[in-house]
Amino acid sequence: MTLADELRIALDGKWRHVRDDARHTLPGLDLAFDHDLDLEAARQRTFDQLRLLIPTGIPAAGFRTAQGGTGDPGMAVTGIEMLAQFDLSLMVKAGVQWGLFGGAVANLGTARHDALIPRIIDLSLVGCFAMTETGHGSDVQSLETTATYDPATQEFVVHSPTPSARKQYIGNAARHATMAAVFAQLVTRGQSHGVHCFLVPIRDENGDDLPGVTTSDDGYKGGLRGVDNGRLVFDQVRIPRENLLNRYGSVDEGGAYSSPIENVNKRFFTMLGTLIRGRVSVGGSAAAAAEVALSIAGRYALKRRQFTGGDGSEVLLADYRVHQRRLLPLIARAYAYRFAQNQLVARMDRMQTTDDPDPLQQRELESRAAGLKAVLTWHASQAIQEARELCGGAGYLAENRISTLRGDIDVFTTFEGDNHVLLQLVAKELLTAYAHEVGGLNPLGMVRFVATTVADEVRERTAASQLIQRLIDARPGDHDLLDRGTQLELFEDREQHVIETAARRLQKAAKADAAEAFRVFNNAQDHVIRCGRVHIDRIVLEAFTAGIARCEDADAADLLRQVCHLYALSVIEEDLAWFMGHNRLSDQRAKAVTSLVNRQLEVLRPHLLTLIEGFGIPESTLGAQILLD
Amino acid sequence: MTLADELRIALDGKWRHVRDDARHTLPGLDLAFDHDLDLEAARQRTFDQLRLLIPTGIPAAGFRTAQGGTGDPGMAVTGIEMLAQFDLSLMVKAGVQWGLFGGAVANLGTARHDALIPRIIDLSLVGCFAMTETGHGSDVQSLETTATYDPATQEFVVHSPTPSARKQYIGNAARHATMAAVFAQLVTRGQSHGVHCFLVPIRDENGDDLPGVTTSDDGYKGGLRGVDNGRLVFDQVRIPRENLLNRYGSVDEGGAYSSPIENVNKRFFTMLGTLIRGRVSVGGSAAAAAEVALSIAGRYALKRRQFTGGDGSEVLLADYRVHQRRLLPLIARAYAYRFAQNQLVARMDRMQTTDDPDPLQQRELESRAAGLKAVLTWHASQAIQEARELCGGAGYLAENRISTLRGDIDVFTTFEGDNHVLLQLVAKELLTAYAHEVGGLNPLGMVRFVATTVADEVRERTAASQLIQRLIDARPGDHDLLDRGTQLELFEDREQHVIETAARRLQKAAKADAAEAFRVFNNAQDHVIRCGRVHIDRIVLEAFTAGIARCEDADAADLLRQVCHLYALSVIEEDLAWFMGHNRLSDQRAKAVTSLVNRQLEVLRPHLLTLIEGFGIPESTLGAQILLD
Repeated sequence: MTLADELRIALDGKWRHVRDDARHTLPGLDLAFDHDLDLEAARQRTFDQLRLLIPTGIPAAGFRTAQGGTGDPGMAVTGIEMLAQFDLSLMVKAGVQWGLFGGAVANLGTARHDALIPRIIDLSLVGCFAMTETGHGSDVQSLETTATYDPATQEFVVHSPTPSARKQYIGNAARHATMAAVFAQLVTRGQSHGVHCFLVPIRDENGDDLPGVTTSDDGYKGGLRGVDNGRLVFDQVRIPRENLLNRYGSVDEGGAYSSPIENVNKRFFTMLGTLIRGRVSVGGSAAAAAEVALSIAGRYALKRRQFTGGDGSEVLLADYRVHQRRLLPLIARAYAYRFAQNQLVARMDRMQTTDDPDPLQQRELESRAAGLKAVLTWHASQAIQEARELCGGAGYLAENRISTLRGDIDVFTTFEGDNHVLLQLVAKELLTAYAHEVGGLNPLGMVRFVATTVADEVRERTAASQLIQRLIDARPGDHDLLDRGTQLELFEDREQHVIETAARRLQKAAKADAAEAFRVFNNAQDHVIRCGRVHIDRIVLEAFTAGIARCEDADAADLLRQVCHLYALSVIEEDLAWFMGHNRLSDQRAKAVTSLVNRQLEVLRPHLLTLIEGFGIPESTLGAQILLD
Repeated sequence: MTLADELRIALDGKWRHVRDDARHTLPGLDLAFDHDLDLEAARQRTFDQLRLLIPTGIPAAGFRTAQGGTGDPGMAVTGIEMLAQFDLSLMVKAGVQWGLFGGAVANLGTARHDALIPRIIDLSLVGCFAMTETGHGSDVQSLETTATYDPATQEFVVHSPTPSARKQYIGNAARHATMAAVFAQLVTRGQSHGVHCFLVPIRDENGDDLPGVTTSDDGYKGGLRGVDNGRLVFDQVRIPRENLLNRYGSVDEGGAYSSPIENVNKRFFTMLGTLIRGRVSVGGSAAAAAEVALSIAGRYALKRRQFTGGDGSEVLLADYRVHQRRLLPLIARAYAYRFAQNQLVARMDRMQTTDDPDPLQQRELESRAAGLKAVLTWHASQAIQEARELCGGAGYLAENRISTLRGDIDVFTTFEGDNHVLLQLVAKELLTAYAHEVGGLNPLGMVRFVATTVADEVRERTAASQLIQRLIDARPGDHDLLDRGTQLELFEDREQHVIETAARRLQKAAKADAAEAFRVFNNAQDHVIRCGRVHIDRIVLEAFTAGIARCEDADAADLLRQVCHLYALSVIEEDLAWFMGHNRLSDQRAKAVTSLVNRQLEVLRPHLLTLIEGFGIPESTLGAQILLD
């Protein structure tokens, strides 16, 4: 076993067998994006590729055995991440079909919908996930589409009452879906019960729109050419009563509404919570795409030379300080995020295979999935962009892959929840101490419900695991910044301070009128979002630390410790003004941070190839011509 | 005249008539990018569009009257910037033909080449600019292509001796160019005289490669689909002696070399210096593209609502603090950079229409063009990216334009000089006090020649104009951060300190051996590049200040002062750790910076539409469907 093998094992995590299978099987399936295809042909190719995935078992893994699946949610998410190494259009289209559409049926439906699952797995039923509307994306609770129950025929009437009620950006909607999982306000007996999900057939076997349904095409996008995003408009479309996915809300034949969850907000967020896998997959896939780009740029830096150095020969790009400064901290982040993502997937898997999950843990998991989705997709955009620039003009040519990844990844920062909104959601959960009553992201809700006990809550919530606490307790008195306990304490302390001060700002308006409350919230909005960000930073450092503790190879663990130092130091360096301004770092220690980052670059430079190989992406999968020349 | 008109006049600068003509004429020419075209059709369309530009006078403006042009370099650059508002493929293709290829002939050639200029203007001769090679991009002095003089036939033999000598990424080379301006090592009588430029016919009238020339196609890229980038390989291609563009180096019939410039480095940089217009155009065009994206995102923020606010109705995106924080500082930068760019263009125009330009001013201009190109293209990438995200999913659809701009702009940060390399070039000029002997970007050159007098030089070079000095002298004692003199002094002081400390680091190795000298340079490389960055920041703030002083409308000047405050404060905020760590800002003043940025957001929010209108881009030119819905 080489050191790179040991790193790969550490990074592969619990579903290593899935990754190894995928490394073995997927390269044979010809999944690389083909730029020569026009829009329709590219979509068809991606659709055809979906069929090739069925025998891998990845599609079935996401569904319970009772439904016809194999009940391995961790495998489902890991499998999707592996697809992202090959083509993001394929990853998205697979995610739409099996994750979003299939996930809605599996998690929001009841036994009467289970018969659909095998047909979803084998693609005899192709669907789409019709949530976002032209007028409302982030604010899902305000969707305008209605599904009104008609007891006379025992049907729901699905309708788009306004132009802004049009379903928009829906993957699979422009061409391939024959059914839509439509999120709409459920109305019965003249009363609205909030957003629920309904199965609405949209196309016949010829691909023509069914009566009352108007589909249209979003056409060209910044990337993801293989995904047919489109729009749906409903004109009084009638569907059987049974097409309500009725796990969290039912309407009986006579039109009486019932739900196991009384509170409308709690019901809505419980429904959304079951769809967590979408965000988990998006974050993980984005991180995987970043690893591809960093692998290409890293390998290129080890073969490309420019300008003469001290010994008269041309210098490798990887030996320039500024090149190292641009590349290595991103690689360190990629390692950090993979450990955090693996931890998230494992917790999600545990939660989704438990009969009676703890509701607080469930909400913490949802919050973590939202926050990691935001941080990992921004990281991916940044890393792929930097990788492009690190390869110069070569990075811009499609034959070297990175520019295609860049176009494809771009939407990840705003789909499955806009990143800023998601971090605000994380902050809301932290600041309101997971109060179930708090509705959506209505700013006023956050102000009204901000916990008066938030300081205690924060301390309790950031209470570290034994391992972390031991490291913190053992930190040296001299605040050595290369000590893990010191780093952990800095991250934890920053989080507590940022959250407590945000809470205090909001609490001032708890009794103010609505206009003043909004003003207070809005003035603090950047502070609120920062709560989410620093919370995730802390979680990531702890996950990295835990991952190192699990690594069984001493040399690999040593190297991971150095990578983790670079991660922690580069996060501190980015926020240095805060640490200085809040007397967490003296001017002198603050200046040392930059020197320490540079020191870590020198420590890690000899291991650059090993670190790249640790990502476990075969050079052939990278698909970059510059690495072959 | 509205306030927006007055802002537009201030931003339009000296070539306002060119901008007004373009606003009037270009919309009628159908220049918008068409996504439905395949690669070849897109290239052909862009090529056909070039012809439509001839009557605008923009192509002829870049050439001297004696050569058949109209001798208005400022108009040439401004005209290209206006094209960038419509389509960046068109801007690049025009820039390649008339700016790079035409510019090489006009500025490196002599009277015997002037006959080509009218044919270049009217497109009867289409060319390409063949500088970059597969093996050498940033390090142009190390190009491998050779042009060896054969006195027997009075020809140069142009040859690609290695695979890495292949010309690469050359615009117009894949399809439309019939001639290439090839940069190659001039060899005569067995001696190399460094890189010179040669005219090499590459295709016949049928578009077939001429004997010895092998063209190939770079194919798909991250954007710029209308530009046919390609590669050129030469196998002992013979061209007449007269095809050497011989302004800075000639070979007589017998093979004797002569040049008006003795020093080979000085000669090379003088040649490159005449090609300054390429970088000026790239920076200006990138800034123009950023203005388009910011106009779209800004106008969208003024119509899109999401989530309920204090009065029970949904809140405009533009009214959210975080949305303002993301959008308004970028608009302030766009204003700042336009003033800096206008100043650059005016200086370039003056220099290029003067018979005997001052060499030091010439090098300062080149350095400034390089630095502004870097800063403006990074700004463009960042602003267009943020604009995309500020529009959510809509920003990703091609019909809303921004994602196309994003793909097109991406290469601007690395073409016409990689931005990091350009900032290093700026630093080199500053640190070596414009010593003519310093060759290229060889790290050792910088260490050897770093001026021992750099501190004095820096103080002299940053010596402010009367206006700036008056503001600095009049700054209040309490260091009010909303005082322009205080801001100017902070920028100037930071630049002096960063340059002086970088110089001291490098001077330590002035007498070291090559290996140690490289090590010292490399350890300081990020510091060196930072010299270039903070230098440009100071130049931009001074240009903004000067632009406000020239604004004749009192209300517009007042508003511009507020925009300039936001620019200055956001630059300070970005580098807050430095200002704190170097005791330029106390902890207390540092904390005030963020509050002051937020204050400026509140001051400017009511003027958002006015500020966008000030960019002077008609809504129809923006070409974004979301603004029409």
